[in-house]
Amino acid sequence: METLETLAATLGPRNCLTAPDDLAPYAVDWRGVWTGMPRAVLRPGSVEEVQAAVRACVAEGLSIVPAGGRTGLCGGAVVPANGPPSVVMSLERLNRIRDVDARDFSLVAEAGCIIQNVQQAAAAVDRLFPLSWGAQGSAMVGGALSTNAGGIRTLRWGNARDLVLGLEVVLPDGRVLNDLRRVRKDNSGYALRHLFLGGEGTLGVITAAALRLVPALKRVETAMVAVPSPDAALTLFSRVMESGAEVIAFELLIGRCMDIVQKNGIGLRVPLPLGSPWYVMVELAAAHPSVPLREMLEDTLATAAEAGEVTDAVLVENEQQRANLWRIREDWPDCARREAPVVNTDTSVPVSAVPRFLAEVEAALSSRWPEGRLIAIGHAGDGNIHVSLMAPNGTSREDWVARAREAEPIVNAIAVDLGGSFSAEHGIGQSKRHAMATHKDPVALDLMRAVKAAIDPAGAMNPGKVLP
Amino acid sequence: METLETLAATLGPRNCLTAPDDLAPYAVDWRGVWTGMPRAVLRPGSVEEVQAAVRACVAEGLSIVPAGGRTGLCGGAVVPANGPPSVVMSLERLNRIRDVDARDFSLVAEAGCIIQNVQQAAAAVDRLFPLSWGAQGSAMVGGALSTNAGGIRTLRWGNARDLVLGLEVVLPDGRVLNDLRRVRKDNSGYALRHLFLGGEGTLGVITAAALRLVPALKRVETAMVAVPSPDAALTLFSRVMESGAEVIAFELLIGRCMDIVQKNGIGLRVPLPLGSPWYVMVELAAAHPSVPLREMLEDTLATAAEAGEVTDAVLVENEQQRANLWRIREDWPDCARREAPVVNTDTSVPVSAVPRFLAEVEAALSSRWPEGRLIAIGHAGDGNIHVSLMAPNGTSREDWVARAREAEPIVNAIAVDLGGSFSAEHGIGQSKRHAMATHKDPVALDLMRAVKAAIDPAGAMNPGKVLP
Repeated sequence: METLETLAATLGPRNCLTAPDDLAPYAVDWRGVWTGMPRAVLRPGSVEEVQAAVRACVAEGLSIVPAGGRTGLCGGAVVPANGPPSVVMSLERLNRIRDVDARDFSLVAEAGCIIQNVQQAAAAVDRLFPLSWGAQGSAMVGGALSTNAGGIRTLRWGNARDLVLGLEVVLPDGRVLNDLRRVRKDNSGYALRHLFLGGEGTLGVITAAALRLVPALKRVETAMVAVPSPDAALTLFSRVMESGAEVIAFELLIGRCMDIVQKNGIGLRVPLPLGSPWYVMVELAAAHPSVPLREMLEDTLATAAEAGEVTDAVLVENEQQRANLWRIREDWPDCARREAPVVNTDTSVPVSAVPRFLAEVEAALSSRWPEGRLIAIGHAGDGNIHVSLMAPNGTSREDWVARAREAEPIVNAIAVDLGGSFSAEHGIGQSKRHAMATHKDPVALDLMRAVKAAIDPAGAMNPGKVLP
Repeated sequence: METLETLAATLGPRNCLTAPDDLAPYAVDWRGVWTGMPRAVLRPGSVEEVQAAVRACVAEGLSIVPAGGRTGLCGGAVVPANGPPSVVMSLERLNRIRDVDARDFSLVAEAGCIIQNVQQAAAAVDRLFPLSWGAQGSAMVGGALSTNAGGIRTLRWGNARDLVLGLEVVLPDGRVLNDLRRVRKDNSGYALRHLFLGGEGTLGVITAAALRLVPALKRVETAMVAVPSPDAALTLFSRVMESGAEVIAFELLIGRCMDIVQKNGIGLRVPLPLGSPWYVMVELAAAHPSVPLREMLEDTLATAAEAGEVTDAVLVENEQQRANLWRIREDWPDCARREAPVVNTDTSVPVSAVPRFLAEVEAALSSRWPEGRLIAIGHAGDGNIHVSLMAPNGTSREDWVARAREAEPIVNAIAVDLGGSFSAEHGIGQSKRHAMATHKDPVALDLMRAVKAAIDPAGAMNPGKVLP
């Protein structure tokens, strides 16, 4: 194909991969669920090379699938199996941190920077880049922003979207949208960057971003708390929010999770007695060691215990204990995998609707799959509880998915009925397009299609993703 | 005109105004700078009436100028003088607070709710709606969101955009975009609401919004501080941010402002000796009275004084003193008006670039207008300093505008060169369209035009605003 020869000449043959062995790693997502073979993998090394590659591909009718760390859960960075001829455009070589400015509480990072490296660059100047989730050691800036990544700290600092001051984007026509400004107030026309943030690469290729930093944390207090019900957890949530401390995480876990972690976690021990129906993990933080965070947490939990919202609690005593506690959360997917197959969901509801959501989900799932085990673990402070239906021990993944596949649309429908979302933090990619067709307001879908057609009239950017 | 008769039948004659006396208040902005006569003023009382009115107007080629409290500074809610035949659509009757949910930290307000009423509804359930600025007693939700209003507390809680969880919008084709959900995480396709937030009514009519609340403030500490230079102020800013307290305001004022306030403010007294070249107003807050906020502020200021960043400081002792202190900031426009005419700007730069911005502005303005007085007062923590050039005493407004009009583009160009914005918080409306043409990235302008054409192909919504 002549285009690929031209691209090989422009990018260098090592950055225009076409050999099957070179393509293979880019032809499957990290969970091994989504596969699709690109015609080539392009690895541009500069914004100009991204522009040249986009122009060449569009001119020849090749679609472009932008890719970063490729840790997404919805197949967004993989060529669709029956889609048009496509290349994967990996941003991995655009990995410079262009600027760090402590006094401005900002840094400018290219799309291929690994999130953990951004965190370290911030820490080096006594600042925090607060975006944090399990895949941060592999995920890259471009992917995190294109999927509007969430995680455990969004309660305090928002999703990826909220941490972006400015963007640089290569558009489908090869031009650069240069909005890489580090301004906190800018009302000069439409907020175009919010289309590309969460746009999953369907409108253009993010090449760099100006990111917001906050003061480094100098004191952190973490507790694991046993609570009698989701309703008690929600009352505790208001109480903690009113404690005067900065609440940076508030996670809710169904009691069953602890048994599964205790049984399957390698070297993991739950620091509270098992047997509570629900647990909460709460973390407070401050930018200065003088903030009496421990007293604030102890006072809050003591009052909550008197009110019957808390039945037991343990505060971590040192960094080692804190790391162990968060491993319960981080190692959960592995522990679950060792236990039995699950059908997963990614919904959110208004925070105050979490108890009703969980009650309705439990009723709906247990009546249809009495043998299934309800799993609920998630970001209660955001209303984003990940509900799963876990198979009885000894069931194969294939069997369970065939039998319980319908659990996902049922949970989605309950969330949407409560004013929630069927895709809270993972995005749409390929895996949630059916839910977009079912649940999204048709007016919103029409508007999205109009925006897509206006910005990418040829439909060259990441086809077969997001829009149903 | 037949359309107007139909509309009078639909909305009721009292809500389809056509008499010159009834139109007059809507034909001029509150500063009296922008004027334009509508064919009618429509005051729909429900979302359905908004839909019917939009459809009827578009069908007859009447343009629609949405209006709320009409406190904007850029002429966005006024019919353009030489524009197409237009109606003003006032949302003032859509003024219900539909829902308040303390546990969800949210409320749902219609577009015509006055901001102060929203604040009071939040306070009634021990919550805070943090958006706050001088016009809050008249400004309405729809206008605040359409202009992405800022103010003094954006440092901690962001601009209007950041306080919106969901929106309800009547589109130019009369359909409703129903995205009025109270979810904090939602990655189901493009973030359409961000087009209407800050869209200044050029893409549709916002009819209601789900707004984010935060815990009510239970302790506030405020100080007025004399600093030797903007650079010292910026060092103090980092220090305060690292104090562990929540910093909810950090305002910088050139010393000259204090003399003018002292001279022209009715009953206003500056609580520090005059004569410092610069002053800072800093406010810390906490959601619980146990947070040792005063000690944190005192310790921070003491360390800053030792380091030479602070030459004098006064902490307020009670609510009366706090109110008096903030009156300096709020009454500033009146005090300035009594002193002499000014040419105003509304720029922002990266926070760390504020000292250089002010130095370059002073050099540029003083060399061309040695008789002018540089005014600088604004939100240093956001990089949004409002710079003005004040006339010598005894100059008429007409003379000064004729002589010093060029000060605005000069200041704008300096801000843009430093990576900033020529319109930080007031928006574009009619008054900044020339700056859009001069300073905005042409690629961004093309994209904005494409988005506008996709959503409002007839160009019926608020013509002659935002886009040059």
